[in-house]
Amino acid sequence: MSKPKGFEKPVGVRDYLPRATRRLRRIERSVLDCMGRWGYDPIKTPTMEYYDTVGIASSTPDRKLYKLLNNRGQTLVLRSDMTAPIARVASSLLREEPLPLRLSYHANVFRAIEEEAGREAEFFQTGVELVGDRSPEADAEVIALAIASLQAAGVGTFKFAMGHVGFLNGLFDEALPDRSDAQQALKERLLHRDYVGFRETAESLGLKPEQQEELEGLLRLRGGVEVCEQAAGLSGHTLAQESLAHLRSVWEALVDYGVSQHVLIDLTMIGDFSYYTGMVFEGYAAELGFPVCSGGRYDNLLRQFGRDVPATGFALKTTRILDGVDDPAGEEERPALIVYEANRRAEALAEAARIRAEGGAAVTRLAAESAGEESESGRYSRVLRLTAENAPAN
Amino acid sequence: MSKPKGFEKPVGVRDYLPRATRRLRRIERSVLDCMGRWGYDPIKTPTMEYYDTVGIASSTPDRKLYKLLNNRGQTLVLRSDMTAPIARVASSLLREEPLPLRLSYHANVFRAIEEEAGREAEFFQTGVELVGDRSPEADAEVIALAIASLQAAGVGTFKFAMGHVGFLNGLFDEALPDRSDAQQALKERLLHRDYVGFRETAESLGLKPEQQEELEGLLRLRGGVEVCEQAAGLSGHTLAQESLAHLRSVWEALVDYGVSQHVLIDLTMIGDFSYYTGMVFEGYAAELGFPVCSGGRYDNLLRQFGRDVPATGFALKTTRILDGVDDPAGEEERPALIVYEANRRAEALAEAARIRAEGGAAVTRLAAESAGEESESGRYSRVLRLTAENAPAN
Repeated sequence: MSKPKGFEKPVGVRDYLPRATRRLRRIERSVLDCMGRWGYDPIKTPTMEYYDTVGIASSTPDRKLYKLLNNRGQTLVLRSDMTAPIARVASSLLREEPLPLRLSYHANVFRAIEEEAGREAEFFQTGVELVGDRSPEADAEVIALAIASLQAAGVGTFKFAMGHVGFLNGLFDEALPDRSDAQQALKERLLHRDYVGFRETAESLGLKPEQQEELEGLLRLRGGVEVCEQAAGLSGHTLAQESLAHLRSVWEALVDYGVSQHVLIDLTMIGDFSYYTGMVFEGYAAELGFPVCSGGRYDNLLRQFGRDVPATGFALKTTRILDGVDDPAGEEERPALIVYEANRRAEALAEAARIRAEGGAAVTRLAAESAGEESESGRYSRVLRLTAENAPAN
Repeated sequence: MSKPKGFEKPVGVRDYLPRATRRLRRIERSVLDCMGRWGYDPIKTPTMEYYDTVGIASSTPDRKLYKLLNNRGQTLVLRSDMTAPIARVASSLLREEPLPLRLSYHANVFRAIEEEAGREAEFFQTGVELVGDRSPEADAEVIALAIASLQAAGVGTFKFAMGHVGFLNGLFDEALPDRSDAQQALKERLLHRDYVGFRETAESLGLKPEQQEELEGLLRLRGGVEVCEQAAGLSGHTLAQESLAHLRSVWEALVDYGVSQHVLIDLTMIGDFSYYTGMVFEGYAAELGFPVCSGGRYDNLLRQFGRDVPATGFALKTTRILDGVDDPAGEEERPALIVYEANRRAEALAEAARIRAEGGAAVTRLAAESAGEESESGRYSRVLRLTAENAPAN
């Protein structure tokens, strides 16, 4: 293995130059401000967490966690999302706070081995968690806020898809009772949107023709709210029926929010099924071929931290938005350059102070050193010269 | 070793609740905005860097670096400061940019074993690097900007101390030629501000009385610019004399900036002497017993990344400022709570949207679930009720 060269950084991580950094900061600020107007309070948690607590509770597969040892021999992880750390805080420091809790964050998260696929090992997420409310209203609120947040981030055209893990669990339990391996195989296919593979797996299970048709009928359950009616005919299972009723209520609230035109119902969507327990959703920007937002309900997570309360939330994939969506704000204001001769320095510094006090930007430079300033003419908005020639007369 | 409990986080790291998070974000924004008005452009770098490049180049002792392996078997470190990563970027992505470069950052950094002393293993720094300018003007600019940045962070009363590593190197080379161990021992004493130990070490070296007096005279070199004159009498060494001349020039520029009343000269101050090569400085808040800012010139660092140019800069110890300095901004505005009955939901959501569009904050809640709202009366600025009783008459 060759030693890295001096100027190299690790694979899968990146530097943000000034233009990208400014834009990332603008997105962070606009989105957190938007979340604040919806009553969500920002929190920060440590980069490192215990593997045995947050590491295990997170939805990230073990092999994708960055692990390290502290000097007590305990295994730490670099956080892979913010949902598990916030569940920890809601169960400890905020344990006595009345529910519901509305919390927001902007944070970098880490995923090992992502680098192998040319994906990022460190990236930014901006999101919320609504803790302690199991109503359809709560699910609708986080979807409506996800839409407002994408708009605040400058994403103009987008579409959301919404599904329900409970409906799938009910449908599969009815069609394949006590066959959890087969259920798992079908869910894996859905998770990877492998619909051909889903049909093949369904055919291989030796089901009666009508049961097989029922399973394959699932793949047609994508569209408007009418999908809930069609789905109701596919499964009489109680969990499936309750899940559809919940989803219909979420939809009605989204109509009242005035945002249902952005949302499709997609009952093949499953999200991370070891984690989500109810409604799940994803947001897609028109410009991009992958989700820029994902979220859903995870009513079992907080129990792992000793506070058994329901929760729902979402995260924007902020780095993807930064990379994939055009920047409406454009260029920053460039600073003025003030070039001075040695005996007029105090005057030059006072002029710079005046410009800064008015909210402008200024850079000062001793004239003797300014030989190269023509080559960087694009860097400054204007050049002021305080030299012997243009000194005041006294 | 017992397993950590579900709600525990690692020793030495912390959660920032909403009040602290808001304040940290305010400080970040005010300070980076201030730096922007001085022409400094913000950048971000990865949390993980190669041990063999940034890890080794950083001023942090090896045992204080958090290390981890990536899946290629390379050793990574969690960054322990931002100076070495910025030196890497200045030598790679920004290699073709004309000098000087003015760069700013706000970042979390990591130090292992600090936790043992009850110190933080992860904390925030906000700072600048001015790359490619070796003049006294550049050193004065970063000190003046450090003062402006502390003010922007809300630190009202503070004092800066400024020294010069070159003066000490010259003085010691003259008094103790070819005795690098003895020089090192004296520098260690100064680094830890152990003046009694410094005297004891100086007495143990078997020097002539006048040489010993010269060394001990160093301890009196703290005060205004007159200290430079006293120091000039202590050592005729070229490097010492040049260093004093540089320091006087920095002082004169600080007078022109109108900030010299905040600055003392302290020639016993050495900073991290494996790292700094010239002027060094520290800032102290009146409220606190430790530095809230440190900086200086490090002309040898960028060479390690293949671009041999001088540099000077500083970092605010932002977490210490957050903890130790009173918050002038006070409380955030609390959201309005809108409680609605089911048939008036669209109306309630529209009212919330109106409040948010005007820059206010609002939370909505279905009336049936609002049993506990009296217990959280402090959370909302006001409560609006949209119920059957107060519905419009039509």
